[in-house]
Amino acid sequence: MFQLTVEPRFNDTDALGHISNTAFPVWFEQARTPVFAIFHPALTMDDWPLILARLEVDFKAQTYWSKPVEIQTWIGHLGTASCQLVQEAWQAGKLVARAVSVLVYFDYKAERSRPIPDSIREQLSAHFQHENQ
Amino acid sequence: MFQLTVEPRFNDTDALGHISNTAFPVWFEQARTPVFAIFHPALTMDDWPLILARLEVDFKAQTYWSKPVEIQTWIGHLGTASCQLVQEAWQAGKLVARAVSVLVYFDYKAERSRPIPDSIREQLSAHFQHENQ
Amino acid sequence: MFQLTVEPRFNDTDALGHISNTAFPVWFEQARTPVFAIFHPALTMDDWPLILARLEVDFKAQTYWSKPVEIQTWIGHLGTASCQLVQEAWQAGKLVARAVSVLVYFDYKAERSRPIPDSIREQLSAHFQHENQ
Amino acid sequence: MFQLTVEPRFNDTDALGHISNTAFPVWFEQARTPVFAIFHPALTMDDWPLILARLEVDFKAQTYWSKPVEIQTWIGHLGTASCQLVQEAWQAGKLVARAVSVLVYFDYKAERSRPIPDSIREQLSAHFQHENQ
Repeated sequence: MFQLTVEPRFNDTDALGHISNTAFPVWFEQARTPVFAIFHPALTMDDWPLILARLEVDFKAQTYWSKPVEIQTWIGHLGTASCQLVQEAWQAGKLVARAVSVLVYFDYKAERSRPIPDSIREQLSAHFQHENQ
Repeated sequence: MFQLTVEPRFNDTDALGHISNTAFPVWFEQARTPVFAIFHPALTMDDWPLILARLEVDFKAQTYWSKPVEIQTWIGHLGTASCQLVQEAWQAGKLVARAVSVLVYFDYKAERSRPIPDSIREQLSAHFQHENQ
Repeated sequence: MFQLTVEPRFNDTDALGHISNTAFPVWFEQARTPVFAIFHPALTMDDWPLILARLEVDFKAQTYWSKPVEIQTWIGHLGTASCQLVQEAWQAGKLVARAVSVLVYFDYKAERSRPIPDSIREQLSAHFQHENQ
Repeated sequence: MFQLTVEPRFNDTDALGHISNTAFPVWFEQARTPVFAIFHPALTMDDWPLILARLEVDFKAQTYWSKPVEIQTWIGHLGTASCQLVQEAWQAGKLVARAVSVLVYFDYKAERSRPIPDSIREQLSAHFQHENQ
């Protein structure tokens, strides 16, 4: 499991007085950084090897500014060329959102997916959700 | 069907050179405005009657700055207290993303859902996806 | 003068119920696109020739979602390697913000400024503020 | 002096490969939180007593994702009804941006400014720039 503490920014709120639903994809993306680093330790942009294929977010409770949010990230499933992640966001002891995303190991030049190498699969496996919850 | 033309902002891009995946929830939210207006014609904030319960986005193709994006919005399904929307984003004749969202008719003071009145159901029904595609 | 109509996005609001001050730099940047196009007609990223050196915004009135904002952009002053822009944002007949920015003609590879060529200076001159207001 | 460490989010980048200039107003706003808390310890939205009147940002160096940014905030000047703040953003030992902003002590219901009370002036005075640099 990977963990990130997000400080909600005032700019993450909207006119309904709470955190905008649109902030969550931003936070969940940021919390995927350690997964990006397994695929691409340099984290450089010109040879970035991942593309987001799908994102689902379930909004469970209203979330507010000025209290930290803890985000937990697990590997849910590993396919040949893709990696499913499961993420939870917690604020003040309450599950506020849950996300499932699919990252594809991607060759931007060829514009196609490629198989995830064994060395990467091995590192990702240490963070499987079903073995850790 | 409702239609919105979005001009991607430079700020919607990210360091990979294309539109950030995080821009799509923002665009899809903005494109739901005519649906918000059926539920709440005044569009005022202090008695806003909707909350987003779920959002799914499938990213179909890379999207770029400086070309308009057309967003189409249909009602996918109407529940007792909730409304499922189906949305598509097109750029240069290509489907770039597809979203399914669930809006709940919500009483923020009582913090609970409430049944969607018949007058609203009727207006929403004019935009059902299966009757229009 | 260049003109852009911005549709404020719900996501541009903040918890105070109005448009966030942080949305204005985003809108003003987008409204500078025709100036970018004079410097760099292709608008491609890998050889982008401009960098923002300075931005000032005066916030004149509260701004709200669901009403369009008109942004006007003039060239305020032309230096050897830089270009000062003056921009105004109007909503419902009211000046809501005014910005002054400085763009530098910049070589990202050499990481230094370069003189603005005469052909570009000429095109920019057609949009001087003092000759048009 | 107040200090905030910002973790740049992937979403703060733009297609030029670096941090978007539009991220800085967001970061600087977030870094003003301890000043907001002096004016309004509850940090609640419905009786928020401040409005931003002006923001200037000088961009000093390119800024990148995946390295923390330190933001320092001082009181630059105290007027009758307004407070000028000076802020610096540093990344990897380099000054990357400097901001000057003006906050007005504001009654949103009456839509006008009001004098800053002595008790608040006193707390703010402990953070004057000229006495601390």
